[in-house]
Amino acid sequence: MLGREPLTRAIAASCYRHGARFVDASYLDPWIRRARVEHAPDDSLEFVPSWHRERVLEYGRQRCARIAVGGLVAPALLDGLDPERIARDRWPFIPEYHTIIDEATTNWNGVNCPTPDWAQVVYPDAEPGDALARLWEAVLHVCRLDEDDPAAAWEQRLAKLRRARDMLNDARFDALHFEGPGTDLTVGLLPTSTWDSGWSETVDGIRYMANLPTEETFTAPDPQRTDGVVRATRPLVLKSGIVIEGLRVRFAAGRAVEIDADRNADALRAQAARDDGAARLGEVALVDRESRIGRLGTVFYDTLFDENAASHIALGSAYVDTVGDDDRDRANRSVVHVDFMIGSNDLSVTGLTRDGERVPVLRDGAWQI
Amino acid sequence: MLGREPLTRAIAASCYRHGARFVDASYLDPWIRRARVEHAPDDSLEFVPSWHRERVLEYGRQRCARIAVGGLVAPALLDGLDPERIARDRWPFIPEYHTIIDEATTNWNGVNCPTPDWAQVVYPDAEPGDALARLWEAVLHVCRLDEDDPAAAWEQRLAKLRRARDMLNDARFDALHFEGPGTDLTVGLLPTSTWDSGWSETVDGIRYMANLPTEETFTAPDPQRTDGVVRATRPLVLKSGIVIEGLRVRFAAGRAVEIDADRNADALRAQAARDDGAARLGEVALVDRESRIGRLGTVFYDTLFDENAASHIALGSAYVDTVGDDDRDRANRSVVHVDFMIGSNDLSVTGLTRDGERVPVLRDGAWQI
Repeated sequence: MLGREPLTRAIAASCYRHGARFVDASYLDPWIRRARVEHAPDDSLEFVPSWHRERVLEYGRQRCARIAVGGLVAPALLDGLDPERIARDRWPFIPEYHTIIDEATTNWNGVNCPTPDWAQVVYPDAEPGDALARLWEAVLHVCRLDEDDPAAAWEQRLAKLRRARDMLNDARFDALHFEGPGTDLTVGLLPTSTWDSGWSETVDGIRYMANLPTEETFTAPDPQRTDGVVRATRPLVLKSGIVIEGLRVRFAAGRAVEIDADRNADALRAQAARDDGAARLGEVALVDRESRIGRLGTVFYDTLFDENAASHIALGSAYVDTVGDDDRDRANRSVVHVDFMIGSNDLSVTGLTRDGERVPVLRDGAWQI
Repeated sequence: MLGREPLTRAIAASCYRHGARFVDASYLDPWIRRARVEHAPDDSLEFVPSWHRERVLEYGRQRCARIAVGGLVAPALLDGLDPERIARDRWPFIPEYHTIIDEATTNWNGVNCPTPDWAQVVYPDAEPGDALARLWEAVLHVCRLDEDDPAAAWEQRLAKLRRARDMLNDARFDALHFEGPGTDLTVGLLPTSTWDSGWSETVDGIRYMANLPTEETFTAPDPQRTDGVVRATRPLVLKSGIVIEGLRVRFAAGRAVEIDADRNADALRAQAARDDGAARLGEVALVDRESRIGRLGTVFYDTLFDENAASHIALGSAYVDTVGDDDRDRANRSVVHVDFMIGSNDLSVTGLTRDGERVPVLRDGAWQI
C-alpha cells in the first residue's frame, strides 16, 4: 500500500524482541486524507477525537518510545485541492505532541523508509527497481548505516556538533546575519536562546537521537526580530506532500510579509495564515558542509533529509527547551512547524554581538568559531 | 499491503461525501500481530492501552457509525506459533465493543473485501487474477449487490426472516434438538430467549444491518443446558486466520468437554480455555436453504460468510439483547465469541416445548413453522 510496511514490521518485531509490552503501530493512509480534504464538511476539518489526545498524552505518562516512519508516498495526491483546506486538516498532528516533546517524557525518533514513489521523485530518470535500490543505498549512507559501527560513527559526528553548539552558546549572539544569493536576512535571538544538537535526553535520562540522520545545531530565535529577504536553496515538501519550488520570503519585524515561489506558494501562504505564530520563526538551524546529505548533493524532497543538508529556518512552533525559563513565554507558538532550507556553501553566516561586533560563524560551509 | 485498501478508501470517501465529521480509519497489520505473538513478554499479551478503551466507549457516546472491513489476509501467518499465546492476544477486540453493542449506541456493519490471499484459499486451482475476479463476483452475489435494487432485495429477504423470528418467539421452545450426520445435540433455551434477525436498531432509532450478508435468525441459549455431540459442517476460521477442519465437540451440562478436529483442534481448545464462558454457548442461529451462501455451496473460509450459509452455534459471549431483562444475568459472558457451522440440508431442527412436545422447525433446509 505505502511501501513502508516491511520496515515498520521489522521495527515492530525488533521492539517486541527487546521487551516492548505493546507496539501501537498505525498507518496513515494518504488516500483517506485526500478524501477528507476533498469532501468533509468545512466546519469539521480541525476535528480531533478526544481519545487521540488521550493517546498522545498517555505516551508521555507511560514513558513510551516513539518511532515515526516516513518516506514519500503518492506525491501528487493532493494536487488541485484547496490549499486552505489542506492546511486545516493536520490529523494526526496535534499540539499534545509538542507537550510531550517539551516535557521530554518520550524518547522519539523520526526515520524514513525508501518507497517506490519516493525513489521515482528523487531519481526520475531511473528504472523503478533501480531507483528504489539507489535510494536505499543513499539512505543507508546518510544514516551512516554503511559503517562497520554506525553507533560509533554517530558518536564521532555528534561530538563535533556538540563543540559547535558549545561555542555558539558561549558566544551568546544577539542575532545571526545570513548572506548569499537572494538572501540577506537578520534573525534576532532571545537573551536565553540555547543551541542544541545531536543527542537529546528524557527526564528519566534516556539518551536518544530524535532525527536519523541529524546534522544540525539549532535554537529558537526571537519571533519579533527577523528582517530581510531569504531564498530557499532546496525545494520544500510539506507534510501533505505538496512541493514548493523557488521559494522567496520577506520578513519584517518577525513576520513573513511576502511569500513567493515558482510553484505552490499558495500552499505555504495557507500554512503561514493558520495562526499568528505560523508567520514567525520558531527555529534557526546551522548545518556544516560535512553533512553527508549536503555532500551527496541529492535533493530528497523530504524535510527530515533535506533539512540536514543545509542551514535552515522554520516557520511556526519553537522547541521550548531551546530557550531558558525566563524567555519561555517569548518563544514562538503555533500549530505548524515548517522547515525550509536556506543554506549552501555560498551562504555565509555571521554572528552579531550585543556590542555590534560581527563574528564569522560559517564560511564556505565550514565552522569558523 | 492487505488488499483491503481500495474498498476502505472508497468507503471513507463515501462517508465524507455524506457528511461524516471524521473517519477513524485504522488498518490492522497481521505481520505485526505475528511479531507480538512470537516475541512479546508473556505477561504483556493481554495488555490494552487505556486510550483504546476510551476510543471504543467514545464511539458509543458520540453515536458513531462503525464499519469493519474484513477479508482473509496471509492465512498461514500464525502457523507454528503457540496456540495459547495466539488466543491471549486479542488486540484490538476488547470487552468495550460488547458494551457499546449491548447499549445499541452505534450503528455498525461487518463486510468483507475480496483480497488476493482470500481468493487463493477459496479457489486454490484458479489463476490468481481469475480467482480474485471470481471471488468479487461471488461476494457481490451473496451480498445481493448484483440486483437492480439491492436494498429492496434485502427488505424482501429480511421480511421472510422476520416471519421465522416471530414464529419462533411465539413458540417459546424450551430447547432445540439438532439431528444429522455426526450430530445429536440438545440446546436448552432460557425462559426469555428472544429470537432476532436482519435489521437492528440503535437507541436513537437508526435501522442498520450489522452483518452484510445476513441470513440468520438467532438467540442466546441457556449456557447450562447443552448436551450431546455435534459435527461442524464447514471449516472454522478463527480471527487469527487459523483454520480448524473436521471439528467435533461433545457437550455435557452446557460445557464443551471434548474438542476434536482433523486439524488445529488445539487452537479452539485454547480459545475455549480462556474463561468459564468460553466453553459454553452464547448463540444459536438457524439458517434456511434460501441463503445465497448456502446455495452457492462455496466454502469461503470466513465466519461472516460461512455462518450465513448454515445453522450454527457459538462458544462465548451472548448478545444480551436476545434475552429478556429477567434472564440478563444468565446469558453467557466471555471474552471470546467463536461461531461454527453445524447446519446442512441433512440437519433437522426440532423444537421441544415445555410439555415435551416435538415441533419440526427446519427439515431439508426449509422452515416448518
